[in-house]
Formats: sequence, structure tokens, C-alpha cells
Amino acid sequence: MIYADHAATTKISHAAKEEMMRVMEESWGNPSSLHTPGQLAKEVLEEARRKIAACLNAAPSEIYFTSGGSEADNQALRSAAYWGAKKGKRHLVSTAIEHHAILHTLDQLKEEGFEVTLVGVDQNGVVSVEDICRAIRPDTALVSVMYANNEIGTIQPIAEIGRCCREHGVLFHTDAVQAAAHLAIDVERDAVDLLSLSGHKFYGPRGVGVLYARRGVPLRPLIAGGAQERSKRAGTENLPAIAGMAVALEDAAAKMPQETKRLAALRDKLEAGLSKLPHTRINGGKAPRLSGTLNVCFEGIEGESLLLLLDDRGIAASSGSACTSGSLDPSHVLLALGLPHEVAHGSLRLSLGAETTEEDVDIMLQEIPKVVSYLRSISPVWEELESGARPHLI
Amino acid sequence: MIYADHAATTKISHAAKEEMMRVMEESWGNPSSLHTPGQLAKEVLEEARRKIAACLNAAPSEIYFTSGGSEADNQALRSAAYWGAKKGKRHLVSTAIEHHAILHTLDQLKEEGFEVTLVGVDQNGVVSVEDICRAIRPDTALVSVMYANNEIGTIQPIAEIGRCCREHGVLFHTDAVQAAAHLAIDVERDAVDLLSLSGHKFYGPRGVGVLYARRGVPLRPLIAGGAQERSKRAGTENLPAIAGMAVALEDAAAKMPQETKRLAALRDKLEAGLSKLPHTRINGGKAPRLSGTLNVCFEGIEGESLLLLLDDRGIAASSGSACTSGSLDPSHVLLALGLPHEVAHGSLRLSLGAETTEEDVDIMLQEIPKVVSYLRSISPVWEELESGARPHLI
Repeated sequence: MIYADHAATTKISHAAKEEMMRVMEESWGNPSSLHTPGQLAKEVLEEARRKIAACLNAAPSEIYFTSGGSEADNQALRSAAYWGAKKGKRHLVSTAIEHHAILHTLDQLKEEGFEVTLVGVDQNGVVSVEDICRAIRPDTALVSVMYANNEIGTIQPIAEIGRCCREHGVLFHTDAVQAAAHLAIDVERDAVDLLSLSGHKFYGPRGVGVLYARRGVPLRPLIAGGAQERSKRAGTENLPAIAGMAVALEDAAAKMPQETKRLAALRDKLEAGLSKLPHTRINGGKAPRLSGTLNVCFEGIEGESLLLLLDDRGIAASSGSACTSGSLDPSHVLLALGLPHEVAHGSLRLSLGAETTEEDVDIMLQEIPKVVSYLRSISPVWEELESGARPHLI
Repeated sequence: MIYADHAATTKISHAAKEEMMRVMEESWGNPSSLHTPGQLAKEVLEEARRKIAACLNAAPSEIYFTSGGSEADNQALRSAAYWGAKKGKRHLVSTAIEHHAILHTLDQLKEEGFEVTLVGVDQNGVVSVEDICRAIRPDTALVSVMYANNEIGTIQPIAEIGRCCREHGVLFHTDAVQAAAHLAIDVERDAVDLLSLSGHKFYGPRGVGVLYARRGVPLRPLIAGGAQERSKRAGTENLPAIAGMAVALEDAAAKMPQETKRLAALRDKLEAGLSKLPHTRINGGKAPRLSGTLNVCFEGIEGESLLLLLDDRGIAASSGSACTSGSLDPSHVLLALGLPHEVAHGSLRLSLGAETTEEDVDIMLQEIPKVVSYLRSISPVWEELESGARPHLI
């Protein structure tokens, strides 16, 4: 099986798994307990916090552990929104291409009386700094813009948006879940106030994430209860996963210079090959992108059939976000790029990662065109397109 | 080290850890992905759901996976409260001895305009069914009563409270986090609508829990985003931990008949020995209790000093909930029993579990009296008590 769905999840690295095992055996106490097993666990917790902080150029006291990226996103948005509301600021700015952990939380906040402006993106899937700045009003509490998009991989101008937010005195959150495996994150350089990470996107464990909150940004517990995480996140700490995540993030940072080059070269080869197919569009292809991500639309075919036939041939890919698979709606990200529904339906996301080899790419370049041709050969839409009865949209 | 703090956390069992490892290696796909690795992961997820459901006498579709007991408690309370509010019911009933995951969530809901009645307990730490029933009003949305208390181990009359709630048409939630390792839970027999579990309290993994919600009880996502858990809990499923938890819960159920007898015998021996010390009170000692839990107050000494000296002698115990360690306030549970502050400060919780042997108990029976005597010998309070300058409170 060729796994080309690293943006959905990665297989935990050997080092991260070993660290989890070590902590389960050696440091299994409850870090809140006063006795020796508890205090040993507490040391492991704080060591992991220091490691993660160092990777982000943050202070350890600015790192909060969550159950994942979605929880971190929810807590960041709610914390900033309620803080703003206390000062009469009930306006939130975000983009049309955010992950649903952001968009659905914004929907909930709208029901609670907040006003939300979703800024669009250009046809390459990049938001404009000017558009974000223009959306900021005197009553804006928060701007939230993802670091890099999960479906098409486009990297957003985070540092510039951060500077603009700071000038306007508005909190800035970024969902860096997809970025962490591929880009060096620096909360100072990027002027970020709140940032979300997810362990399993960078070869770390499932069920664990990070919420960075700059000193002075008051977090509100999403999960209330015990005094863990300085009373900002209740529940016994998931220590094996936290320690495993710290190892994985350090590894990702160490390997990043070489690995991103390697993946970009593989992705570019894949892209060049698939681009030769007629009526094929590379989404986000003209923008800065994450090194391993390629998103393609093949006109005249349906994404789900493509995935199933590729799976049959040993290629695991996706049509976009795994979180929305099973949904019949086309991707909100591709629609935001201006693609018509019928084109957005035919998308394929190939996301390469640690296990991907050049041989994998060569096999994909053999198999994907065959499957695309076959699906087009049985597609009534393609027949209309080829006969001229219907205009090509790509 | 003698570990007598199983109520704070347990060391993951070999079987649960092996299952986690197996899933990390063999079923590491994202269960939301359509391809083979995703669908294999999905099968593991649904198998774990069936196992957990069977242990609770629930349907698999009534089981939702969370990041732990605290998250499950938060979601249960908020779901029921908001559902009630839609029908004009903004009153919630709970008890004075709940875990902080319940009490602090109720505090948040009070700020949002809900009214909360906290029912007290008797001097043995048991809530009365009549008191709960009397607290129910026409505008009551939810009753939440813990299955067994985490500090003193007292078991609450859950089935009777469940029946009363059903008669009144009020939703009933129980925090069964402490109970699951020791008591057979049956959501039908107990007439429970919502129930919380935490994996690491029954030799399962950290960072994972269960929210049972009876069919027809509408959950509201606490974490919004992707469509996981039938859109009731966003975030990529923590599959290794979920599968490990299922194994651990099945194991706990299989071992329960023998293990609870064994632990109760050890606890009773420990209790009999410590009861011989003067001015010593067994909290909850006259009530039905979890088999492994013993909570003692030694008048004239301070709990934290006791813990530290015991730790020095190789005994890991706690003064109460690990979640509130570091707090200078005496336990809200012991205060609810009617104990004076100065007595509640001198509490010791010994919670026995799988690793506990009779030799451990014998060593504790040697060491604890020595440490208590020593601390009393240097305690000015004890001097006053012994000289008659101050009345004994126990």
C-alpha cells in the first residue's frame, strides 16, 4: 500500500512510540500527586513542555496540552471571544478556508451573539494581508488564520497578518496543525498570540495537541474541573502522549531542512506528471505550499470513485479533509478558490511524507492516469465535455 | 515503593498497553478516511465501541469517546443544561461531594444563568434518594450524582436515584469514573441517561474516556469541528487509547468478582489496624464503599506532612483528590461530611489496587502509626488536645 494521505494522519514514529512506552512503564504516576511517582511524572511533563516551547520559540509557561488540534482551536477561539466580549468586542475575523474546528466553533459563537467576518482567498488559495487588515474593526476581538491549508497545502502570510493584528491591538490565532511537520514555527517572528498543534500530524501520538497562548492572553477552560495546566485545562494529563509528542516535534524540526526538500522534489515530480493529463487543475499550485501536498482536480470525474479505484490499486489518498469524508458537499476550500461545484467534486489530495519514496511516486504516475482515463471513459459528463455539448471549466 | 494511590491513577495493564502498540502498528489510519488503512482503523474503532457498550449494557451507538472523564462530565452537563434551557428548564441538581469536573462546570453554568441545587450528604458520605427527589422541581433539567466518591469511596444509591429521575422526567447523569474498576455498571438497571468513564482509572490508557448517552438524549459537541463520533465530538479519534481502554474495561469486568473481594479484605485489615490509633476517624466507614478505598483522619496532624513522610518511607498515598493537590483548602468532600476544618486537614486516602499485596498492607500498618505518632509528638495542636486545653473533635 502506498500511503499518500499524510495530511489526514501519520504513523507514529519509532522514537515517539518508544517514548510513550518508556513513560507508561517508568513515569506512570499522576503528575498532580505529591508522592514520588507523581513528582517523577511531573518532571516528565515539564520537560516535554520545555521541549515543545523551544520548538516554537515560546516560554514553557505559554504551552498548554490539549487532547488535539480541534480542542486547541475551540479553546483558543472561545477564550479570545469571551475576553473580547468583556470589553464590548464581539467581532471575529477568519477565512473561508479554515478547518471545520474553526468554522464550526465560529458558527457556535455566532449563535451566542458574536459577529463573524470570513475573508475570502484568491484563486490560488491564499488570503491577502490587506483583506484581513481591512476586515479588522474597532470591535474586533480576534483574527484567526490557518498557517497552512489542510486540503491544498497553501501557506498563508502569517507573519504579516500577525504584525497587522498587533498594530490594531487585536488577538491573533493560527491553526498550525498542518504546518508543524513542514515549516519552522516561531511565535515571536510570526507575532502569534494563540496557536494550535496536533501531535499525530507530525508522527507523534493521537489524542494530544498543544495550545500556545502568549503570556497575558487569558485562556478560559473549555474543560473545567481539576487544577491541571494551571487551571486552564482539567483532566489528568495524557503524559505518555505528551512526552511522545515532544519527541516527535523535536524530530520533525531536526529533519525539516532535508525532508522538506526531499518531499517537495517528489511532489513536484508527481505534479509535473499529473499536469500533463487534459483538463486537470493543480489547486494552489501557484502559491507557496507545504512540501508534501498536492491537490488536483480532474474534470469530468467524481472524487469518491477515484479514491476507491486508487485504493484498489494500492494507493491510499483522499479527496480533501478526512474530517469531512462521507459528506456529499464539495470541499469548502475548493469552492473558496472559485471552482465550480462539478470541478470541486473531482478533487484528489495526495500528501506525501516520511515513508514516501520515489518509487511510490512513479507508481502513482502510472496508476492515477489509468484510473482517471477509465473514469472519464464511463463518465456521461466527460462525453458531453469532449463532444462540445458542455463547456470545459478548467 | 508501595503504591496506595490507585484512585489517582493506575498503571496501564500489560494487555491494554499491548493493544495500544498493536493498533499503532497495524491500524494507524484515520478512521474517517475512505481508503483501506482508514477503514481498517474504523473497524477497530467500532469493535472497541461494541466492547465498551457490552460492559455497560448499552448499545454501541450510545457510546461516545472523549479525552477522559473530565471532558465527558463537562459535555454531559452542558448537553443536558442547554437541552433543558430550550424547554425553559434551567435548574440543575447535584451533590456537594462531586468531583470538580462537575462542580466547576456547574459554576460556569450558574454564570450563564442556570440555577444549581447541591444536595448534601449524611455523615457517612452518602446522599439520600429522598433529598435528591425533593430537590427536583418542574424546571429541573438534570440530576447529576457520582456513582462512587473519589476521596472516600462511598457508593451512592444510583439505581434508586435513576428511578426517581425517570418518574419525574428529568435527565440523570452519573460520573462513574471511580466506580468502573470496582462495580458492575448497568445503564438499564441504573436508569442512567448519561454516564462518564475515564480509561486510566481501570488500568487503561491516559487521555481517553467514555460518555454514554442514552438514545434520544441529544449531545451538544463540547469540541466542534469534524464529523467524528456522529458529529458529537470533533477531532481525529485517539484510536490506540480507545482500543486499549476497551481491553482494560473488559479485563476489569472479568476480574471484578475476585478482585473486589481481595481488595476489600486487604482494605478491611488496613482499616482495622489504623482504627486502633487514638482519635482516628474512618471517613465513609459505615457506608457501602469501593473495595480498595480507605480514607482516614488523624486528629492533630496535617495531611501534607503525613504524605511527605510516608513517601520518604516508600508509601505513595494522597490526602484526597490528586486534582486538587497543592490547594490549601481542606477537602470539600470531608467538609460535606460535617468534619471541622482542622480535622479535614489531617486526612489520608489509601486506595489499593491490582499491585497491592498483603505484605504492602502489613508494611503500611507498621509505618503509618509510627509517622502519625511522630507528627503528633511535634504538633502543638496535639499537645493542646492531650492537655485538655482544646476539645477533641473526633
